[in-house]
Amino acid sequence: MIKTDILIIGAGPTGLFAVFEAGLLKLKCHLIDALPQAGGQCSEIYPKKPIYDIPGFPEVLAGDLVDNLMEQIKPFQPGFTLGERADSIEKLEDGSFIVTTNKGTKHHAPIVAIAGGLGSFEPRKPQLENLAKFEDNGIAYMIRDPEVYRNKKVLIAGGGDSALDWSIFLADVASEVTLVHRRNEFRGALDSVEKVQELKNLGKINLITPAEVVALKGDDNLHSVTVQKTDSKAHIEVVVDNFIPLFGLSPKLGPIADWGLEIEKNAIKVDNTLDYQTNVPGIYAIGDVNTYPGKLKLILCGFHEATLMCQSAYQRIYPDKKYVMKYTTVGGVTGFDGTKKEAPKAVVKAIE
Amino acid sequence: MIKTDILIIGAGPTGLFAVFEAGLLKLKCHLIDALPQAGGQCSEIYPKKPIYDIPGFPEVLAGDLVDNLMEQIKPFQPGFTLGERADSIEKLEDGSFIVTTNKGTKHHAPIVAIAGGLGSFEPRKPQLENLAKFEDNGIAYMIRDPEVYRNKKVLIAGGGDSALDWSIFLADVASEVTLVHRRNEFRGALDSVEKVQELKNLGKINLITPAEVVALKGDDNLHSVTVQKTDSKAHIEVVVDNFIPLFGLSPKLGPIADWGLEIEKNAIKVDNTLDYQTNVPGIYAIGDVNTYPGKLKLILCGFHEATLMCQSAYQRIYPDKKYVMKYTTVGGVTGFDGTKKEAPKAVVKAIE
Repeated sequence: MIKTDILIIGAGPTGLFAVFEAGLLKLKCHLIDALPQAGGQCSEIYPKKPIYDIPGFPEVLAGDLVDNLMEQIKPFQPGFTLGERADSIEKLEDGSFIVTTNKGTKHHAPIVAIAGGLGSFEPRKPQLENLAKFEDNGIAYMIRDPEVYRNKKVLIAGGGDSALDWSIFLADVASEVTLVHRRNEFRGALDSVEKVQELKNLGKINLITPAEVVALKGDDNLHSVTVQKTDSKAHIEVVVDNFIPLFGLSPKLGPIADWGLEIEKNAIKVDNTLDYQTNVPGIYAIGDVNTYPGKLKLILCGFHEATLMCQSAYQRIYPDKKYVMKYTTVGGVTGFDGTKKEAPKAVVKAIE
Repeated sequence: MIKTDILIIGAGPTGLFAVFEAGLLKLKCHLIDALPQAGGQCSEIYPKKPIYDIPGFPEVLAGDLVDNLMEQIKPFQPGFTLGERADSIEKLEDGSFIVTTNKGTKHHAPIVAIAGGLGSFEPRKPQLENLAKFEDNGIAYMIRDPEVYRNKKVLIAGGGDSALDWSIFLADVASEVTLVHRRNEFRGALDSVEKVQELKNLGKINLITPAEVVALKGDDNLHSVTVQKTDSKAHIEVVVDNFIPLFGLSPKLGPIADWGLEIEKNAIKVDNTLDYQTNVPGIYAIGDVNTYPGKLKLILCGFHEATLMCQSAYQRIYPDKKYVMKYTTVGGVTGFDGTKKEAPKAVVKAIE
């Protein structure tokens, strides 16, 4: 059982920044995220895209923003349960919560803050018979650890950046890489498209276009994939260890929708008049996952909501203490790891 | 008459960031600030102090934050009325406002956003007879343009960073610099204290401590200042062109307190359930100047409030249009100066 003060569901920018504000109030945080790394959409969907509306950054790459936030929260030593989706919640008699993931990991905290963005990102799956049978036995929709594919025969399907980038990466790892796409045209960064062209010319990527995967064969494990050329209707049987359809991710609120929280327009209703708490006391929702009158789904709004949530969480945990968040230029930042950052103090010195 | 869409009173970080969000909605902004430069407290009081709680910045100097914000809003070409205090407001029949400064500059806008921080920073003044008489005739409490003091005889009073830094700066500009402080000890950055010591040793700063200015003499213009040594009670008559007491600034809500807005605890009450509007429709208050249940006086909260204010202002100005602020990674940023920043688009290219 993992114990913490604030259990944050969703490790995107809003969830990450909450760790910082909680830390200023000496509250510990632990984050759960279905994705294999922190950063949410910023890391998974558009790490190399610039964002222009983060206050104080005329331009910042989404991935760099996440790196900066990770650096900012480092003194507060957050815990992470990554690659697992928060599935169920149980309220204990003392008002605290136990949240269990799809892999059975249990987390216990007096406060739960849902910072789930647009929801957990679920892969778009191809319509194929036997698909479910081979999931985790040859089929994956996300690459968590590329080493799994070392010296394997891999077939990737898709025509966007993920399909291009992973084909390039695995060309050096797998024993054989086949890339299947339903068009001849790929949509991605120019250098990725050119690199795939080059690897194809070198025979390091086996390209089949325009084509689609139409059947899966195997016993316990996937053994081969049938690819149909869209133009000639010809079938090609490709022997593979792994089939990785990379058709993008689509956000789903997922199991959180069944936690008894008031939902409106696929988002969680919160009390924006005070602290972004949901209809269940002790459960908050911050960032893109929440809704309230006038809500804007912007990262900078999530930062504000996270901050007010932490102040309210503090008062729930310590109802008798009075501590109000102050700006850091006066008090500095003292990490749980013993680090201290503070403004240099003015010296007092006589002039002779 | 200066005309704009949103007239922002206060050019601190919150007011500056409002220009950016307004710009995304194609609304023009003009800012009024009593201080001679943009940045509010960050520029005037602690430009060299680090801030740790701006999301995405593990550490940023207050002055650098302001520079970044100025860079971020540059495409939206804000107007500035600096060194003037917003004094009075008049509501016209069409619901728009005219705001007049203490120097008579008039501004006309359908929306007024007060981002006045802790108020306008008023200099602490020494208790001296004739003080008011010589204001603008030899006495200044803030240095707006150091060139005014070229080849002049200047007497500075004070023992903090401002007094130290301006003494150092003017030692190269003025013909004579005298620094008076009621103690021998100065409170400031170590290198400033050491530099003043050095300039004193070189005879470039005339230091009188512990001492106080006790009288002012002159006709139309200030002619000399009487300094009394605290220890010996001896009087020293210093002939000067300018006397600059730098005893710090203290924030005052000032004339805004009389604009008919609901005030609570020296701050302006706003509707935090929607858009941070005051009790007067069309007048908003954002950042440290406002109050509502759960309010935290943090820069990052001001950024959020500024953003929701802009969205609401847009709806007031264009009640028939529906446009909701979106994150900039999709739409990019198009400046009023014709500049355009946007994420590189994915190319679509066939692989042969």
